[in-house]
Amino acid sequence: YKIAVLPGDGIGKEVIEEALKVLDSVSEKYGIEFDIKKYLFGGCAIDEYGTPYPKETEEACLESDAILLGAVGGPKWDDLDGDKRPEAGLLALRKSLDVYANLRPAILFSSLKSASPLKDELLKDGLDVLVVRELTGGIYFGERGTEKIDYGYKAYDTEAYTTKEIERIAHIAFKAARNRKKKVTSVDKANILDSSRLWRKVVNEVSKEYPDVELNHQYIDNCSMQLIKDPSQFDVILTSNLFGDILSDEASQLTGSIGMLPSASLRGDKVGLYEPVHGSAPDIAGTKKANPLATILSVAMMLEYSFDRLDAANDIRKAVNELLEDGYRTPDLGSGIILNTEEMGDMVVKYLK
Amino acid sequence: YKIAVLPGDGIGKEVIEEALKVLDSVSEKYGIEFDIKKYLFGGCAIDEYGTPYPKETEEACLESDAILLGAVGGPKWDDLDGDKRPEAGLLALRKSLDVYANLRPAILFSSLKSASPLKDELLKDGLDVLVVRELTGGIYFGERGTEKIDYGYKAYDTEAYTTKEIERIAHIAFKAARNRKKKVTSVDKANILDSSRLWRKVVNEVSKEYPDVELNHQYIDNCSMQLIKDPSQFDVILTSNLFGDILSDEASQLTGSIGMLPSASLRGDKVGLYEPVHGSAPDIAGTKKANPLATILSVAMMLEYSFDRLDAANDIRKAVNELLEDGYRTPDLGSGIILNTEEMGDMVVKYLK
Ligand SMILES: CC(C)[C@H](C(=O)O)[C@@H](O)C(=O)O
Ligand SMILES: CC(C)[C@H](C(=O)O)[C@@H](O)C(=O)O
Repeated sequence: YKIAVLPGDGIGKEVIEEALKVLDSVSEKYGIEFDIKKYLFGGCAIDEYGTPYPKETEEACLESDAILLGAVGGPKWDDLDGDKRPEAGLLALRKSLDVYANLRPAILFSSLKSASPLKDELLKDGLDVLVVRELTGGIYFGERGTEKIDYGYKAYDTEAYTTKEIERIAHIAFKAARNRKKKVTSVDKANILDSSRLWRKVVNEVSKEYPDVELNHQYIDNCSMQLIKDPSQFDVILTSNLFGDILSDEASQLTGSIGMLPSASLRGDKVGLYEPVHGSAPDIAGTKKANPLATILSVAMMLEYSFDRLDAANDIRKAVNELLEDGYRTPDLGSGIILNTEEMGDMVVKYLK
Repeated sequence: YKIAVLPGDGIGKEVIEEALKVLDSVSEKYGIEFDIKKYLFGGCAIDEYGTPYPKETEEACLESDAILLGAVGGPKWDDLDGDKRPEAGLLALRKSLDVYANLRPAILFSSLKSASPLKDELLKDGLDVLVVRELTGGIYFGERGTEKIDYGYKAYDTEAYTTKEIERIAHIAFKAARNRKKKVTSVDKANILDSSRLWRKVVNEVSKEYPDVELNHQYIDNCSMQLIKDPSQFDVILTSNLFGDILSDEASQLTGSIGMLPSASLRGDKVGLYEPVHGSAPDIAGTKKANPLATILSVAMMLEYSFDRLDAANDIRKAVNELLEDGYRTPDLGSGIILNTEEMGDMVVKYLK
């Protein structure tokens, strides 16, 4: 299996090192061979080549079975123009790979319950929400511009969706729900937006092919409340690129451990892009405080979705769960036996063995 | 003072009755004369005239010093076309009055702390956030459409802002912050959107006129996390129409008492539109369970902003606080001495005397 690794910036580089250790260990234990190469991406690529997503990196990604990404961005590149920033590279990467389906599981680890900002009684039934976010359409990629007008400027962005774009992401969500609690909540703003009304109509159509999955609809403003009020009502949340950006961050914060949350971006075949939900955290880069578990759990998603090795994936998940039960923590997870980034990576490898 | 009252639909009608009782009582106590007339608006106006915002209602609103609105919408009108729905009336009302500044205070009442979904340690410093939401621009009013394409449809909406629109709402936010904790958090998605980059630039410019007010910027995804992680970091949140819709609902849910939260929509002079943050709640309409306090507190905002009667406004707020301290509750507020809608209205009047 060919894996392109993009460490990126800030703590991205640090957590990727630990994830690669774990991949090594899996390779040994299960006798799976990985062909792993690193490429520049994000701010460090801007420094070297003047662009966040250099041709060489793109070619390598397009030829790989899976891409493992750390995180990009930092204050150093914040003042660049929109199309020259690390974030522009991220958008170009997603688009060039056509990974339209971003899966972001927000799970409450029972040993980390106390890290959640929510009252215990709201967490009785745990918290296990899968946000399925459309990733290559919507306002992230629509027509945009800034025009000089009589007084100052007018700037605009376009939220646009086609039937086909909505259909394919809806299928991903309904299929995911089949392997879970069989419930999809589709989130839109259909009382205002034309694009949301099309979204709702198409999702209703697609749902007819999944009579075993329950479907309900929520407006984005209401969903942002319901997530806090009664998070256990959710199984799969299906939504647009922009709303998914907001809701997945909110949902992950509810678990209290955003440093634990992985993501996968898929396109219907086996190829996938895997990355932690957290960002490049420039404030703690270099301090060895970064939590590598989100990236390590992203490797588990890679093994499951791109390499069909649910056994190895679950092995990693089990190792992580066990070491948490045994009290090992990175600083972001609260009190316990505190480990630094490297020590946590080593600990996962140890529990895997 | 001329007040146009639009009870609307569902519990809107019920909570407005109680607010009018309180207004009556204020009129008597302070010797202020109000000229109050009711008009059809929302679903009930659709039933009667085929349009949610009839000419007669519009004329009355444009001639009034203040407009008091209950809530609109309900399942009966959910299947109508976008431009014929109760929500279209709400947008037309806001636009015709040009009330571009929506103020939504999210306050934790100390006697209702246990109703918040957040852990107590996060609420040590209370919670008192004012969301200043741009209300007459952005994607709510941008160009939109649905086109037939080769396969299915393409639907789009446009998020657009001009320098002038951003300037005027920014001034409202900075002025509000001056009377509070002197901190503005401007929320956008400037790493992706052109409209957000203009937003950020203009807000930075305007902030120079308020050197006594601290300004910071957050991305919408991060803000939706920060609100849960550390709500006491916020004083005034300044944001666009769509992001404000989402964040104000999230913030109000954090207080645990959305049935308590008022709002004011202003345009820089004395005219204002006042309404509770909660909706028409068709599920409890007619059961006498609706909490009228949000509407009653909206009357307090009206007295403060439109009629310059901070004394009377604070009198209402004090009455509400006292009766909560004494244990009176509507069912949404948890356990205590449970009152129905009418009884709660009467109780406020009693405490006012
Ligand atoms: C960094 C940013 C462009 C990105 C996004 O908005 O998609 C991030 O917030 C995410 O959720 O992956
Ligand atoms: C009913 C709806 C159109 C409205 C909005 O989105 O503005 C509501 O959610 C609000 O916040 O006042």
